[in-house]
Amino acid sequence: MAKLHQVSVIGMGLLGASITLAVSRISPKILTVGFAHRALTRKKARQLEVAGEVVGDLKSCVRDADLVILATPIRLFECLFLEIKKYAKSGVIITDVGSTKRFAHKWADGTLGKSNLYVGSHPIAGSEKQGVEYARDDLFDRARCIVTKTRTTSPPALELVSDFWRSLGCIVEIMSPAQHDRIFCNVSHLPHATAASLVNATHAAELRLCGKGFIDTSRVASGPENIWADIFLTNRQNTIYGIDRLIRELKRFQSAVKNQDRKKLERFLLAARKKRARMIEQKMKNKELL
Amino acid sequence: MAKLHQVSVIGMGLLGASITLAVSRISPKILTVGFAHRALTRKKARQLEVAGEVVGDLKSCVRDADLVILATPIRLFECLFLEIKKYAKSGVIITDVGSTKRFAHKWADGTLGKSNLYVGSHPIAGSEKQGVEYARDDLFDRARCIVTKTRTTSPPALELVSDFWRSLGCIVEIMSPAQHDRIFCNVSHLPHATAASLVNATHAAELRLCGKGFIDTSRVASGPENIWADIFLTNRQNTIYGIDRLIRELKRFQSAVKNQDRKKLERFLLAARKKRARMIEQKMKNKELL
Repeated sequence: MAKLHQVSVIGMGLLGASITLAVSRISPKILTVGFAHRALTRKKARQLEVAGEVVGDLKSCVRDADLVILATPIRLFECLFLEIKKYAKSGVIITDVGSTKRFAHKWADGTLGKSNLYVGSHPIAGSEKQGVEYARDDLFDRARCIVTKTRTTSPPALELVSDFWRSLGCIVEIMSPAQHDRIFCNVSHLPHATAASLVNATHAAELRLCGKGFIDTSRVASGPENIWADIFLTNRQNTIYGIDRLIRELKRFQSAVKNQDRKKLERFLLAARKKRARMIEQKMKNKELL
Repeated sequence: MAKLHQVSVIGMGLLGASITLAVSRISPKILTVGFAHRALTRKKARQLEVAGEVVGDLKSCVRDADLVILATPIRLFECLFLEIKKYAKSGVIITDVGSTKRFAHKWADGTLGKSNLYVGSHPIAGSEKQGVEYARDDLFDRARCIVTKTRTTSPPALELVSDFWRSLGCIVEIMSPAQHDRIFCNVSHLPHATAASLVNATHAAELRLCGKGFIDTSRVASGPENIWADIFLTNRQNTIYGIDRLIRELKRFQSAVKNQDRKKLERFLLAARKKRARMIEQKMKNKELL
């Protein structure tokens, strides 16, 4: 962190603005610069003082940065890498906060060249709330952050990015982009596809009678569709496999009900209950849950 | 309620014991009698003073009751109706708190005779917590309670049971058992099957990395497997149709991802988000959510 004089964040949504806020709190000597495309976002970001400087042109955002962090929808990354290459100084380290990582690495290698200083990041923080007004300087406290590297990733860049997240309070874990995308498809993207499908499979008029169970099971379906479309489209094969796996389980369950096989049904439900109990127990032990 | 001198509840779990507690709070003149099969449950129920009397034999539980409420797993209802017929006085009104209603009505008609005074009830209250120790005298405050009737249901019995739940704070809604089972399959049983399938479709080792999204989407999968097996086995056809409908939605979603059809994907996600937003809005307006 001592090496950083300026951290620039592209995108002043909940995540981006929380990064600049957290950096300012923890390392007030570092200049934070936030880029926002929309004038209204810039106005709000300035009023809320989420960054040292809030700018509307990319060049002045990245020109003097030591570290540039992409916090926009994933589909913009490829263009942004090109712009950064044009305007940033040599030696700039680049990362992002996108929820999928294989495409980000592919685009970085394609646009920035083989000796680029890009490292992938995925802080597991945020909420279904969107926008700079929900930014918090403690969003990353005790949050997990996956940092991704390939065989060509620069070791010093990897170290700097990992240290950066740790300084913000994250528990950093390093893995390959392929492993990241497979795991997070299962624990995050698949639940989202499931929740949205469940809502769409239910008659609107009947939802009046739903209880807490439906509300919780469907909560993630309230996330922004453009962000999530990006996630699914950059994690296609895993999503396709995951849905196949889920459908297989649903059919196993359905056949136990069809055949009135109480033993099989209870075994299925017990397996899920036990697996979930172990997961919750582990998270309690790690103090990941309140 | 003025007509009731004794209310007997069979089963001292969370729901059963919350009923006796609520009756004692609201109408202290009514004698509440709770039946529990297990000695340990009776001991706890007496220590916690959840009912006026706690008994271990069914005869003394139902003999002098004006209203008997079944609060056991659904699969025991048929046997319990036979026992109640043997021991209860004529004119006794019977209801239950089971999550499916068609079988309960069928069993009541079959065992108690055509002119029986059975009325179905399904208070939408409770939690994934089980046991008399979680009983609360305000569990039914502002809870919805579905009361079910068929063409043969006695109007005075229907009125008494409806008034009973209203006096406990419930918002009562009357419908047929078939309509009840169809709707609650969609808004409650299907989410449960989905949550359990999602957990079973996910590798245990990967769950370490899951976030709040997975935790909420899977919460109901922590419910007791014996209770839920009863629910699915007494609501088979609706469950089978519901899973077919969910699988169709999952496949629609999957094909949009396969074909990289961003428009279709965003429309799918937007439809779910909007439908859920309307549901939440309606519940906020009705003060059903905090």
